[in-house]
Amino acid sequence: MTTIQDVAAAAGVSRQTVSNVLNSPAIVRPGTREKVEAAVAALGYRPHASARRLRTQKSATIGIRLDPLAADGISGSILDRFLRALTERADRRNLRVLLYTAADATEEIHQFKRLREGADVDAFVLTSTFHGDPRTRWLIENSHPFVTFGRPWGADDETDPQHPWVDVNGRHGISQATTHLLNTGLRRVAYIGWPSPSGTGDDRRMGWRHAMEQSSGLNPGLIASMSAAVDDGVVSGAQAMRELESKFREIDAVVCASDALALGAFMQSGGLIPITGYDNTPVSSSIGISSVDQPIEEVAEGVLELLLGGRNGHAYPEAPGGQPTHRLLEPRLIVRAPLVKVIPTR
Amino acid sequence: MTTIQDVAAAAGVSRQTVSNVLNSPAIVRPGTREKVEAAVAALGYRPHASARRLRTQKSATIGIRLDPLAADGISGSILDRFLRALTERADRRNLRVLLYTAADATEEIHQFKRLREGADVDAFVLTSTFHGDPRTRWLIENSHPFVTFGRPWGADDETDPQHPWVDVNGRHGISQATTHLLNTGLRRVAYIGWPSPSGTGDDRRMGWRHAMEQSSGLNPGLIASMSAAVDDGVVSGAQAMRELESKFREIDAVVCASDALALGAFMQSGGLIPITGYDNTPVSSSIGISSVDQPIEEVAEGVLELLLGGRNGHAYPEAPGGQPTHRLLEPRLIVRAPLVKVIPTR
Repeated sequence: MTTIQDVAAAAGVSRQTVSNVLNSPAIVRPGTREKVEAAVAALGYRPHASARRLRTQKSATIGIRLDPLAADGISGSILDRFLRALTERADRRNLRVLLYTAADATEEIHQFKRLREGADVDAFVLTSTFHGDPRTRWLIENSHPFVTFGRPWGADDETDPQHPWVDVNGRHGISQATTHLLNTGLRRVAYIGWPSPSGTGDDRRMGWRHAMEQSSGLNPGLIASMSAAVDDGVVSGAQAMRELESKFREIDAVVCASDALALGAFMQSGGLIPITGYDNTPVSSSIGISSVDQPIEEVAEGVLELLLGGRNGHAYPEAPGGQPTHRLLEPRLIVRAPLVKVIPTR
Repeated sequence: MTTIQDVAAAAGVSRQTVSNVLNSPAIVRPGTREKVEAAVAALGYRPHASARRLRTQKSATIGIRLDPLAADGISGSILDRFLRALTERADRRNLRVLLYTAADATEEIHQFKRLREGADVDAFVLTSTFHGDPRTRWLIENSHPFVTFGRPWGADDETDPQHPWVDVNGRHGISQATTHLLNTGLRRVAYIGWPSPSGTGDDRRMGWRHAMEQSSGLNPGLIASMSAAVDDGVVSGAQAMRELESKFREIDAVVCASDALALGAFMQSGGLIPITGYDNTPVSSSIGISSVDQPIEEVAEGVLELLLGGRNGHAYPEAPGGQPTHRLLEPRLIVRAPLVKVIPTR
C-alpha cells in the first residue's frame, strides 16, 4: 500500500507538504502542488487509508490513552467505565483497542506520531479535552481520524465544532439535581465545585447557579456566596463543607461536582443533610449518596458511530453540511438515602 | 512466515494435531506424527513465532483483559494501577498493549482464540487467577506465551509452578499489619475478610491468624471468633464491623482484606479505633486509613521480564532447571492517622 511517505519521497517534498496539498491546497505554492498531485496520481495513493480501513472494519485499531489516575481515584472511575464500554463495543465490531500512556498533551502528541508511524492505530479516541487543546489541533492538522469524549470547549462547539465529539450535558445534570432538592422544599442548596477556568467545572457550576436563581427565591449575591471552589478530592470536599458550615448557620443541602467531593462533604456533615455527587461512582452507590449518572454506554456507542460514520474519504465524519458532527447526551439524577451510619467521635 | 495452519493443510490434519505433535508428541499416532514432522521440515515451520517476536520486540503485542468493575470500585483500582504500570513499561520497550473484555473464563478463552487466530496478540497477561483456572490450562495446552499476576494457587506454586507468575505476598502483608498493631500495645485485633475458598482471601486471613496466635497472647478459640467473612464492599464492611461491635465489648483494632471493607469499618466505628485496609487505594490515602501497599510497578516489571526472558523457543520462560519461573514480591505497610472527621448522627 502506498503511504504518504512514498508520495513525499517521489515528489521530493516533506510529508507535511503532502498533507497540506491534500487538506489545505490553498496554502501550498502551485508548482509544489502540481508535483505532489502528479506523485499522488502516479503512485495511485489514496489518502486516509486508515479512515477507510476503519469503516471497512478490517482489523482496524483504535488508540486511547489510559488516563493518569486521579488524585482520589474516585472521580477517575468514569473514564475507566468509558474505557470498558468502548472496549466491549469495539470488540463486537471486531475493532482492536490499543492502549498508551502519556503524562501530558506534549507526550500524548509524541505517542500519536509514534503510533501513526508504526501504522499501529487507525483512529484515536481522546478524553479530558480542554479549551485550546494542542492534541486535537495536531490531529486535525495531520488529518488523522479521531473523536473526543468531551467538547472542544469553544464558543462554537455546537454550531461549528472543530472536530467530532460526544459529551454529556453536565450543566443540565447539576441543574436537575438542584431543582430536585428545591422541589422537596429545601432552599439553601450550596455548591462545592472546582476552581475556574475549567470547561467541565464551569459548566456544572452554571447549572447550579441558574437553577438557584430561577427557583430558590434567594438573592443572587447570597447564592454566589454559597458556593465553594476546591480541587477534587475527599479531603478538600470535607474542608469545603466545614467552611460552608462555619459561614452559614443553615445549609439545607449540598450539590457537588464529583462523588469525591460529595464523600468528603458527607463525612464532614455526618450525613445529616442531603448531599448530591456526580458520576454515580461505586462510592456513592455503596454509601447511599445521590448522584448524577452519565450515560457512558451511549457515549461509547456515539464515539464509535462518529468514528465509523465518516464518508467521502474525509479524515473524520461530517454532517451533511460538511461540518464535523457531535452528540450532547443527557445525564440522569439518581436519588438515594444514606446506607451507612456515621457515629460520633468522642 | 509459515503458520501452524499451513503445516496442518500440508499434512492434511487439524491444527490441534499439529499442536499436539509439537507439544505432546506421545499422544499422536506415529504415522500422523511422521506426516506432520515432514510438513514442518518441508515448510521450515518454526513454532512459537510469537514468543520469538516477543523477545525480539518487533511490534509485539501483549493482550490483557480489562477486568470487570468490582462491585465497589475501590478494590478494583489495584488492577487499574497494574494496567497503567504495565502499559507504561511496555511502551518503553516498544511493546503494544491490546485490551479485550470478557465476563468470565469461558469468554476469555474465546477471546484467546480470536486474538490468536488474527495473529493480533503475541502473549497474554492474566489477572485474577484462581485454583484450577481453565484459562491458564488452555494457554498451556495451546503453547501460547503468557504470564499471570497472581499465583496458580496450587500446592506446588513455588516448587514446581504450572506457569510463570508474579504475585505479592499478601499473607505477609496482613501479618505485618497485625504485628504492628500488637506491638503498639493493642491486643484484640479483629479481622474482616472474604469467605472461603478464595486463594487470595484465605492467604491474607492466614497472615492475620498466625500473627495473632504468635503475639497476641489470646487463645486460638477467641482469635478465631474475632474474624468476619463477608463479600467485598463498603456496606458489607460496615455490617461486619457492627456485628463485631455487638459480639465483643472491646475491639482494639481491625485489619481488613481490602480498603473497601476498611472504609465501611471506619465509617461504622467513627474512626475511634485503628483500621487497616489493603491495596493502599486513593480512598485510604484520602481518608487517612492505614493500608498494605502492593509494589505494583515491580509486579509489572516482573511480568514483562518473565515474558521477554523466554529461551530455547519454549512457549514461556523457564528457570535453568527447565521449570517456569515465578516472583513473589513483598508488600509494605503504610501507617496513617484519620484525616477526615466523623461527626454524630442525632
